[in-house]
Amino acid sequence: MAFERLSILGVGLLGGSIGLALKSKSSHYHITGYGHRSETLAKAQEQGAIDQFSTDVTEAVRDADLAILCTPVGTFEDLLRRIGPALNPGTVVTDVGSTKRSICRAAERALPAGVHFVGSHPMAGSEQRGIEAARADLYRDALCITTPTGRTDPTAVRQVESFWQDLGMRITRLTPEDHDRLLADASHLPHALAAALVLLQSDQSLAVAGKGFLDTTRIAAGDAGLWRDIFQDNSDNLKDSIRRLRQHLERLETMLEPAKAKELLHWLNQAARKRHSRDGT
Amino acid sequence: MAFERLSILGVGLLGGSIGLALKSKSSHYHITGYGHRSETLAKAQEQGAIDQFSTDVTEAVRDADLAILCTPVGTFEDLLRRIGPALNPGTVVTDVGSTKRSICRAAERALPAGVHFVGSHPMAGSEQRGIEAARADLYRDALCITTPTGRTDPTAVRQVESFWQDLGMRITRLTPEDHDRLLADASHLPHALAAALVLLQSDQSLAVAGKGFLDTTRIAAGDAGLWRDIFQDNSDNLKDSIRRLRQHLERLETMLEPAKAKELLHWLNQAARKRHSRDGT
Repeated sequence: MAFERLSILGVGLLGGSIGLALKSKSSHYHITGYGHRSETLAKAQEQGAIDQFSTDVTEAVRDADLAILCTPVGTFEDLLRRIGPALNPGTVVTDVGSTKRSICRAAERALPAGVHFVGSHPMAGSEQRGIEAARADLYRDALCITTPTGRTDPTAVRQVESFWQDLGMRITRLTPEDHDRLLADASHLPHALAAALVLLQSDQSLAVAGKGFLDTTRIAAGDAGLWRDIFQDNSDNLKDSIRRLRQHLERLETMLEPAKAKELLHWLNQAARKRHSRDGT
Repeated sequence: MAFERLSILGVGLLGGSIGLALKSKSSHYHITGYGHRSETLAKAQEQGAIDQFSTDVTEAVRDADLAILCTPVGTFEDLLRRIGPALNPGTVVTDVGSTKRSICRAAERALPAGVHFVGSHPMAGSEQRGIEAARADLYRDALCITTPTGRTDPTAVRQVESFWQDLGMRITRLTPEDHDRLLADASHLPHALAAALVLLQSDQSLAVAGKGFLDTTRIAAGDAGLWRDIFQDNSDNLKDSIRRLRQHLERLETMLEPAKAKELLHWLNQAARKRHSRDGT
């Protein structure tokens, strides 16, 4: 029932960490890595994240029980089209992408009947990147969102969820639509604001920026290519998040008058209390 | 030349940490604390941050060489008016406030000739508060901005800067006007955005928010009263910062179209590079 032959497509921080986590648990996994660069793949093999590798993706997924897409979101549709014909019936495909509507649609179009796609978004990672940053405990105690649709095979969903749970993750199920809407608020907008906040600074203001600024903008140091894909793929939701952020800022501006000190205090208190509700997580 | 008899007005995180830092360096300081609540003052005395205390501010500054205002920014003008008549000629007064124009103006109005005010903004602190969070190393390796004006006594400036340097701080001098303008971008806007970002979330999106969101919004858990005072005192600059933030977001929105993928990548790369320029700080 559990997967034994895995293909990890993309062995950077996320893909590499899956390999390291599995290998640290058991030697019965056989893991094949795929990527563009043999050098990266060789490094992943050396680190023990994968057993073997290929720069040919159809080669890399041959006889896999589970194929996991760990490349940037913008590459998914093309990858699915290329691996579709090479997968055996019964193979399960999942991913680690930060958006879910487009890959769920693409999987339904590109994968043959009998191959089961289950969308996953393990919420791990950092502003670091690459196999060098991979580690066996990256996924432990983090949240993984799965996004089965009405057409998703229920057994495959359970198998994929067990897979992430075995890596130490908690599971929440959402529709692809709810996922992308909620993540625009909780992840994509924060990233957009962090980037805008950095770009707004002059050399002078950057020089006097303290711990608060550095915490607030840490995520802006993340990989630009990954985030370009995410922003473009989820642009409708992100625009809506920006629109609502603007409304909050407009409201704030009305409260900067001396006569509105009480309302401003209430606004800031509400924010502090709400943020405290996620303390210790 | 160095100060020996100090009055710390407000013995919370910032004031208490000054006391602890001085006491950890030398026993020759004599420190008097002032505050509203005897209970807090007694706790500060117990922790060794102050030698004695009074809830009467004129009593608390009697015979001080240096009086440091460590209460919220909104209380400064009233405090200065109350301590002015009680200070001996030659006394130096400074503060730890996050805005500088208003206190520098208020000090010129409220303090008698011969009493020297030097504005300070030691950039330490956290989302924690109160004497319980105070620690002797809070100021070490952090930046302190001093804001002398054309009317500030040069000897007093040097004395106050030495004082902060003895606590382990680096010094940058700015005019009060430049300080408030730069800090609106580097500190007050990040705080406003963090609060808006928290308030924008639904229970559902808050539940799936990960490490990026938590880092980005940590400062929103800070003390609402302190930040109300700061926002109101620096409202003109903060409004201008919000206006420019809006321009960056508008620009971002134009880059969410598929045809603008390259521009978006450039925008994100610029932000990542700029943020990396403050890495390790």
